[in-house]
Amino acid sequence: MNTALTIAGSDSCGGAGIQADIKTMTANGVYAMSAITALTAQNTTGVTDIMEVTPEFLAEQLDAIFSDIYPDAVKTGMVASTSLIETIASKLRDNKVKNVVVDPVMVATSGAKLISDDAIETLKKELLPLATVITPNIPEAEVLSGMEIKSEEDMIKAAEMISNTFGCAVLCKGGHKVNDANDLLYRDGGYVWFKGKRIDNPNTHGTGCTLSSAIASNLAKGESLDNAVLYAKNYISGALGAMLDLGKGSGPMNHAFQVNADFKEVQ
Amino acid sequence: MNTALTIAGSDSCGGAGIQADIKTMTANGVYAMSAITALTAQNTTGVTDIMEVTPEFLAEQLDAIFSDIYPDAVKTGMVASTSLIETIASKLRDNKVKNVVVDPVMVATSGAKLISDDAIETLKKELLPLATVITPNIPEAEVLSGMEIKSEEDMIKAAEMISNTFGCAVLCKGGHKVNDANDLLYRDGGYVWFKGKRIDNPNTHGTGCTLSSAIASNLAKGESLDNAVLYAKNYISGALGAMLDLGKGSGPMNHAFQVNADFKEVQ
Repeated sequence: MNTALTIAGSDSCGGAGIQADIKTMTANGVYAMSAITALTAQNTTGVTDIMEVTPEFLAEQLDAIFSDIYPDAVKTGMVASTSLIETIASKLRDNKVKNVVVDPVMVATSGAKLISDDAIETLKKELLPLATVITPNIPEAEVLSGMEIKSEEDMIKAAEMISNTFGCAVLCKGGHKVNDANDLLYRDGGYVWFKGKRIDNPNTHGTGCTLSSAIASNLAKGESLDNAVLYAKNYISGALGAMLDLGKGSGPMNHAFQVNADFKEVQ
Repeated sequence: MNTALTIAGSDSCGGAGIQADIKTMTANGVYAMSAITALTAQNTTGVTDIMEVTPEFLAEQLDAIFSDIYPDAVKTGMVASTSLIETIASKLRDNKVKNVVVDPVMVATSGAKLISDDAIETLKKELLPLATVITPNIPEAEVLSGMEIKSEEDMIKAAEMISNTFGCAVLCKGGHKVNDANDLLYRDGGYVWFKGKRIDNPNTHGTGCTLSSAIASNLAKGESLDNAVLYAKNYISGALGAMLDLGKGSGPMNHAFQVNADFKEVQ
């Protein structure tokens, strides 16, 4: 069984963060581990409190993992502070992790910046150069490339610029502002478009976490990057298409849409 | 989709704690949420550090959950301090939770007590009376009943005593000292034995967490208690029987043994 590790925050309502990552990795047949960067008290309507862990405690979690069950792939999510990002980068370097998916969470759907300028600089300097692929949305790609993105051509230009600067592949997630939410993968000096199946489901809590951890799961299983992205998009289409509707806000997806949960007979 | 909540610690290596619970609930087709009581830096060889959350932060997680996505069942795991147990009991009462599975984690496999006498008293006074079913192993059933358990007859006697004292059903998990690891369910003034399929797998990290969260998942789906236990034991047989072997110590089970993880085609 292949193994994967998520380094991210905890979402108490289970739709995003390490909970979404663990569900996604499990549904994708990969053994999931987690190093928690912060706890949130959160539901589909918002975050009421955050308790960040210390860099020392994050390091202890990572040491416990790397010294015992080596992850075939690692995914990083929301990491808001400079010292936590430095801790992660140092442990990924020390342990020579090969498949690293960085979801560079920086800008909320509302447009609000979620991490400080200092932390963004550390992310760019320390973490992105270690990434196999990073998965920015349009506002994040704008921050990383320093250019405005208003068209598919802009997406290509920004992704190329980010890829060349940080030496990693870039999956730039299209938004409805730019096109019909098609994603662009820029890698090895060229690009490919992934046209998503259009699903009218307003419940999209945790889609970013889910996509990046599905990609990590596929890389852990030895898939090529192109296939890892394609199968991850297929998975998320299924999870969205199951039309789960929980909570008062933008609810979570059904990560278990393909699970056979009948254990009435002895296995 | 039915919903379930785990209130327990986080296991960084992913085999026990809320990670095992989330994997189990997802594999059993239930939407999983989690309120974290403590973080551990842990692998299959041991725990290197623990960071307990404050009662206030645990309460905030529970409030975020209960005010948005109501859980059809709740499972509680390791809770070591009096104030955290009081917080949980108070929120379960306030929110009138119907299906409560309490895994009364008190004694390690080694025989070492994991929580203080004070906390055991609070568990007995505050939490057990709210339980639908509790799932002690033999040493825990000895603590709760105050009697030694050396035979199947002793198991029945102790379970009856615990059930009468706390007004809940008792699943007493047999150990190899007493019999061939058969479990006794005492409920409604009578009992039934569950004979486990014998599986020679030394990798049993997280079996207690997994069993109790599988029972909670089945209760969330509306199964009777007897069936909830039976199907949970079937699930765990499959997860153990998959013979996963990860880590240097007693490793985790394969929670995803029945998952169809092929997303090569659009779902």
